[in-house]
Amino acid sequence: MIVSALLTSVGINTALCVLFLTLYSVLRKQPSNYEVYLPRLLVEGISKRRSHFNLERLIPSPGWVAKAWNLSEEELYSLAGLDGLVFMRIITFSVKIFTFAGVIGIFLLLPVNCWGNQLQDFDGSNFTNSSLDVFTISNVNSGSNWLWVHFCAVYVVTGFICFLLFYEYKHISSRRISYFYSSKPQPHQFTVLVNSIPASSGSISDSVDSFFKELYPSSYLSHVVVRRTNKIQSLLNDANNMYKRVAQLRPDPTKRKIRHGALSRLFGKRSNHIERYEKKLEEIEENLRLKQSEASLAGEARAAFVFFRTRFAAEATFHLQQSVNPTQWITELAPEPRDVYWPFFSESFIRRWISKLVVVLVSIVFTILFLVPVVFVQGLTNLSQLKALLPFLTSLLTIKFVSQIITGYLPSLILQLFLLLVPPAMEFLSTIQGYISHSDIERSATTKVLWFTIWNVFFATAFSGSILSMMSTILDPKVIPGTLAVVVPAQASFFITYVVTSGWTSVSSELFRIIPYILNLITRLFTTPDDEFELPYMPYHKDIPRVLFFGLLGITYFFQAPLILPFVLAYFCLAYVIYRNQFMNVYVPRYETAGKFWPTVHNSMIFSLVLMQIIAVGIFALKKLSMASTMTLPLPVLTLLFNEYCRKRFLPIFVGYSAESLIKKDREDLNDPTMAEFYNNLINAYKDPALVPVQYSSNTDSLSSPLISSA
Amino acid sequence: MIVSALLTSVGINTALCVLFLTLYSVLRKQPSNYEVYLPRLLVEGISKRRSHFNLERLIPSPGWVAKAWNLSEEELYSLAGLDGLVFMRIITFSVKIFTFAGVIGIFLLLPVNCWGNQLQDFDGSNFTNSSLDVFTISNVNSGSNWLWVHFCAVYVVTGFICFLLFYEYKHISSRRISYFYSSKPQPHQFTVLVNSIPASSGSISDSVDSFFKELYPSSYLSHVVVRRTNKIQSLLNDANNMYKRVAQLRPDPTKRKIRHGALSRLFGKRSNHIERYEKKLEEIEENLRLKQSEASLAGEARAAFVFFRTRFAAEATFHLQQSVNPTQWITELAPEPRDVYWPFFSESFIRRWISKLVVVLVSIVFTILFLVPVVFVQGLTNLSQLKALLPFLTSLLTIKFVSQIITGYLPSLILQLFLLLVPPAMEFLSTIQGYISHSDIERSATTKVLWFTIWNVFFATAFSGSILSMMSTILDPKVIPGTLAVVVPAQASFFITYVVTSGWTSVSSELFRIIPYILNLITRLFTTPDDEFELPYMPYHKDIPRVLFFGLLGITYFFQAPLILPFVLAYFCLAYVIYRNQFMNVYVPRYETAGKFWPTVHNSMIFSLVLMQIIAVGIFALKKLSMASTMTLPLPVLTLLFNEYCRKRFLPIFVGYSAESLIKKDREDLNDPTMAEFYNNLINAYKDPALVPVQYSSNTDSLSSPLISSA
Repeated sequence: MIVSALLTSVGINTALCVLFLTLYSVLRKQPSNYEVYLPRLLVEGISKRRSHFNLERLIPSPGWVAKAWNLSEEELYSLAGLDGLVFMRIITFSVKIFTFAGVIGIFLLLPVNCWGNQLQDFDGSNFTNSSLDVFTISNVNSGSNWLWVHFCAVYVVTGFICFLLFYEYKHISSRRISYFYSSKPQPHQFTVLVNSIPASSGSISDSVDSFFKELYPSSYLSHVVVRRTNKIQSLLNDANNMYKRVAQLRPDPTKRKIRHGALSRLFGKRSNHIERYEKKLEEIEENLRLKQSEASLAGEARAAFVFFRTRFAAEATFHLQQSVNPTQWITELAPEPRDVYWPFFSESFIRRWISKLVVVLVSIVFTILFLVPVVFVQGLTNLSQLKALLPFLTSLLTIKFVSQIITGYLPSLILQLFLLLVPPAMEFLSTIQGYISHSDIERSATTKVLWFTIWNVFFATAFSGSILSMMSTILDPKVIPGTLAVVVPAQASFFITYVVTSGWTSVSSELFRIIPYILNLITRLFTTPDDEFELPYMPYHKDIPRVLFFGLLGITYFFQAPLILPFVLAYFCLAYVIYRNQFMNVYVPRYETAGKFWPTVHNSMIFSLVLMQIIAVGIFALKKLSMASTMTLPLPVLTLLFNEYCRKRFLPIFVGYSAESLIKKDREDLNDPTMAEFYNNLINAYKDPALVPVQYSSNTDSLSSPLISSA
Repeated sequence: MIVSALLTSVGINTALCVLFLTLYSVLRKQPSNYEVYLPRLLVEGISKRRSHFNLERLIPSPGWVAKAWNLSEEELYSLAGLDGLVFMRIITFSVKIFTFAGVIGIFLLLPVNCWGNQLQDFDGSNFTNSSLDVFTISNVNSGSNWLWVHFCAVYVVTGFICFLLFYEYKHISSRRISYFYSSKPQPHQFTVLVNSIPASSGSISDSVDSFFKELYPSSYLSHVVVRRTNKIQSLLNDANNMYKRVAQLRPDPTKRKIRHGALSRLFGKRSNHIERYEKKLEEIEENLRLKQSEASLAGEARAAFVFFRTRFAAEATFHLQQSVNPTQWITELAPEPRDVYWPFFSESFIRRWISKLVVVLVSIVFTILFLVPVVFVQGLTNLSQLKALLPFLTSLLTIKFVSQIITGYLPSLILQLFLLLVPPAMEFLSTIQGYISHSDIERSATTKVLWFTIWNVFFATAFSGSILSMMSTILDPKVIPGTLAVVVPAQASFFITYVVTSGWTSVSSELFRIIPYILNLITRLFTTPDDEFELPYMPYHKDIPRVLFFGLLGITYFFQAPLILPFVLAYFCLAYVIYRNQFMNVYVPRYETAGKFWPTVHNSMIFSLVLMQIIAVGIFALKKLSMASTMTLPLPVLTLLFNEYCRKRFLPIFVGYSAESLIKKDREDLNDPTMAEFYNNLINAYKDPALVPVQYSSNTDSLSSPLISSA
C-alpha cells in the first residue's frame, strides 16, 4: 500500500466521522428520535417529547461532546455502575498506553525505520508514492544495530504496560471493595443458589429446609425452590405479543390521534380484528394462569435460592463443600435478582458439566471453522455465478460500475454480515452453557467473542485465511515465532487501514445507532408511539472484545509499524467521548457485577503483550540479530510471571468477598431496624417473572407494563 | 534378545529372589537383627532380644509369608494407617488389572502375535533361539485384520481399568470419610495455620489475637506464633551428637558389659575424653537454653497456628479469604502436630511463591538434564580412561574377567547409584518449596520422583538417551504418536528383562533392607546396643513411584508385548506379600494424611492409559490400519473426560471435609465432657521441638530420649 492511498482512506473516514457526528448532533434533537438517542433522559423525565418546531433543532452543535468530556468519574459511576466505569477505564487505560507508546513509536522508532534502506524504495522526492512498508521495521537493515532501539522499546513499553496494568487492577479492586462497603443490604449478598439437590422421597422444598436447618440452625433463614417455567415463558411471550397487537389496534381516547397508526388505517375491519385478538388473548391468559398454578404446585427443579441471616454465612456456604458427595448440593453465589437468567435453569451437576463441555467444543469448532462457509459464500458472489443464479440481473451486472461494486464490496460485505452474527451466536452458546445470570452469560460471551475476533480477524488475515497453515503452525510450537515474524509484519498496512476504516466507523456507528434508528423509523410508521419502550442495555459482549482487539492491534504493531499508533490513539479518543455520551444518554445498567469484567481485560492485555514479544523474538531472529532475539526470550516469561502474581494478588477479590469485609458489613446491619423488613422481603426478591400473575384482557391500563417488568 | 536369554535371566533372578527370601527368613530370627527386621515388634515389646541360641534360628521357614498373606485389611489399617492401606491398594489394584490384562494378553494377543510372520524368523523347531520380538505386535503383518484384536483389547482393558479406578477412588473416598467420622477430636482438625501476617506496630501475637477475636469472637480459641528456630535446631543437633558420644563412652552400670564397646576399649584415655565431652555438652546446653529463651521472647515468624472451638470454624477459615488483601493472612489447614516440618518455616507469601517457582524450575531442569552428567561419568569408566586415572590398577585391569566386569557393570552401577540419589534429592527440593508438613513434602516428592522415573527410565530408554530427540518430539505434538510407535515397541524386550531384574530385585531388597542391615552391623561393632533407636518410616516418595512405574510399564506394553504381563504380575504378587510384611514388622506411620496419596496414583494411572492409547494410535497407523488408528483417537479423549469427572466427583473430598460431616462431628463433641481439657491442651500440641527445654548433663538417665522425641 502506498502513502497516498492511506491518506485518501484517512481523509474519507475522517469526513465520514465528522458527517456522522454532525448528523447525530442534529438527529438527537428531534423529539421523534429521543427513543433512540436519549432514552435514559426520556424515562427519567428530563427530556420531554416537545412537538413544537424551532430552527435550533436543525443546526449541529458540539455541546454534547463537551458534556460527555466533562462527565466526572463519580457521575459516570452513578449513571453506569461499576461495570460502566470499568468499561471506560479500558479506554482511558488504552489512551494512556498508546500515548506513551505513540511518543516512543513516532519520535524514536519511525525515524529509525525510515533511516534504513532494506526495501530501497524510499523516494524522498515523491513521498506520497512510497510504500507504507518504508515506515515499518521491514525497512531496517538486517543485522543493523539500530534494531536495539526496537529491542529497548519492547522492554520499556512492556514494563510501562505491566506497571499500568498492576495499578489499574489495584484501583478496580479497591473500587470493588469500596462498592461493597458502601452498598445497602442487597438480596444477593445474603443468598446462595443451591444446585443438584439430590432426589428424596419428599418434596425438594422439604429436603432443602431440613438440610440447611440441620446444618445452619442459627443463620439459615428460608429458601425458594426454582420451578420449571419454560412452557409458561413461551405462553407469556405469546400473550405479550397478542397484547401488543390488541393495544395497537384499539382506539385509545387518552392519546392524540394525529400520527396515530398512520398506515394501520389502511387496513379495514379493525373492530373484527380486535375482537378476534382479544378472544385469543383471553384464551392464552386462561391457559397461562392454569400453567402458573400447576407450576407453583409441582414442577420443582432440583435447585433453590437459600437465604441466610448474614453475608458471611452465605459466603461460607458458597466456599465450603456442603455435602459428603461433592456433586450434590453444589452452591454458588446468587446473582442479583434482576440479573437472574430464568429460562434455561439447568439444575443437575452432570447435565451442566456435559452442556459446558459441548458448548466449549462447539465454540472452538465454530471459531476455527468460521471462515470455511464464509469463503464458500464469498466464492458464490463472483459475477458469472451471480449471472447463472439470477439471470434477470444480467443486464444490470454488465454495467461496469455495478460489477465493480459487486466484486469489490460484496465479499467484504458478506464477511461483515457474518461477523455481525457472532456476538449473538456466542451469547446464545453461553446461555445454554448453564450460566444462571445475564452477567455470567455476557462475561462468558465476551471471552468467546474476543477469541473469535483474534483468531478470525488477526490470525486469519496474517495467514491469508489459510486455516490449515494456522493449525499446523499452532501444532508446531517451535516454528511459531518464525512464522509470525514473517506473516504479521506483512499485514501492517492492512491493519493500519483496518483501524481507520473499521475502527473509526464502528465507533461512530455506535453513536449513530443505525439499526435501532431504522427499527424506530419502521415502528413509527406502523404503530402508535407509546411510552412503553425497552431501555437498551450496553452490549458488553460486543463492545469489550472490539475495544480490546484494537488494543491488541496497537500493542502487537507498535514496534513493527509505529505508524499505526496515532490512528489507534484517535480511535480510543473517539471511543472515549462517544461511549461516555452513550452511558449518559442511552444505556442503563442491566446488572452490577462490580467490575468482574476486568480480569478478562487484564488477560487480554497480557495475551497481547506476549504475542507482541513472541513476534519480536521472531523478527529479531529474522533480522539476523540473534543476540536481541535471545535476550527478548525472558520477556514473555516475566510477563507471564507478572500475570500469575496479579492472579494471586487480585483475582480472589473478584470471586468473592473477604471474611473481614463480610463480617464488618454484617456488624453494621446488627443495629439497623430495617433489617427485619429486609429479611421478610428476601423471599420475594427471587421470584420467577414467569410466575408473576398477569392480567391483560379486562383492563389493559392497569397493567404495569409487562414488557418492562420482564426486562 | 532371544528367548533363551530371557529364560536365563528369569532363572537367575528367581533363584536370587528365593535366596533373598530364604536368607531373610533366617536373618530375621537372629536377635541382633531385630532392630532391622522387626523394630515394631521390638518397641511394642512383643519380641524380646533373646540371647539364648537354638537350632530353629538357622532353619529357613515360610511362616512370615503366611502371616503377611493372612493379614486382614482392618489389621493393616490399624498397623499402618489409611496411608499404608492406600499403598497396599495400589498393589492389589495392579494385581487385579494385570490379572485381567494378562488373561487377554496371554490367551488372545500372544497367539495372534505369534501367528503373524512380519519378522519371518519364528523357528518352531528351535524355540529358544527365536527373538522375543516374535511375541510382540511387531510380528503381526502390516494391514492384517488380526490387529483388530489388539484394537478391541485396548478398548476393553481401558474400560476395565477406568471402571476399577472409579470404584477404587470411591472406596478410598468413603474410607477417608469414615476415618474422619470415627476419629477422636484431633488438634489439627481445630487448627489453621496462618501465613503472611502483615507487619504491624505491635507484636505478631497481638495482631493475630486482635484479628481473629474481631472476626470470630465466638469460635476463636487461641493461637501459637511460630518462632524462628533454625539456629536452635542446629545447636540441638550438636548437643544430641555430643550426648550420644558421652553416653557411649560413659561406663553404664545397668547394662551388661559383655559386648559393650567391643572396639571402643581400644582407645585409651577414656575418662579424659568423657570429661572433655561433658564440658563441651554443658557449654552447648547453656548456649541452647539462652537461645531458646531468646526465641521465646523475640524471633516471632509471621506465621501462627490459630485454634478454633469447632472443626467447622477452622475449615471455613481455611476456605474463605480472610483479609481484603488476598496475599495477607493466608490460611491453610494445619497438619497433625507430629507431621509439622519445623525447620524451613517460610512465612511470607512472596517468598513462598518464588521458592516454589524456583524449585519447580530446578526439578524440571534436573529431570531433563539428569542423564547428561551420568553419561559423562559413564564415559570416564572405559578401560583406557581408568588406566590413565589410576595407573596402579593397570595390572588388575588386564585380567579379562575384571575388565569384563568393569566394562559390563560399571556404567550400569553408576546409573543405579545416581538413581539412588534421586528420591532424597527430590525430597530436599520439596522441603525448600515451602511445604509445612512432612506429608506434603513426601507427596510433592512422590510426584517429582514419578515424573523423573518416567522421563529418565521410560522415555530415555525408548529414545536411547538422546535428550535432543526427546525434546524435539515433545515440542512437535503432531509427530508424538508416530515417533512413540517406532521407539517404544523396540524396547519391549529390554523392559521385560527390566521388570525381571530391577523389579524383582528391588522388591526383595526392600524386604532384605540391605543398607539398614549393613549400618546396623557397623553400629554394633563400634557402639553399645542401646534400646533407643529410631523406628523407620515408610519412604512413600521412593516406593510409590517405583510401584507406579511398573504399573505404567505393564499398561503401556500389555498389547504390544503381552509377554511382559506374567512378569509384572509376579512383581506385584511379590510386592503384595513383602510390603504387608514390612508394614507389620518394620515401618511405623509417621503421619496420617488419610489417603491423600491416592489422587497421585489415580493421575499416574490415567497418564499410563493415555500414553498407551497414543502409542496404539501410532502403531495402528504404522501397521497401515488407519481405520483402527482413527477409531482409537476418541479413547484418550474419553479417558481424559473420565479423569475430569473423577476430579470433580472425588478430588474435593481429598482437599477438605464437607460442612455436613464437620458439623456432625462438632455436634457429637458438644456433650463430651473431655472437650474442655482438649481445648486446654490444644495450645501445647503445636510446640516447636526446638523450644522444648532440654537437660543432658546433670542426669542423663532422666532424659526422655531426645532422639525419639525429635523424631
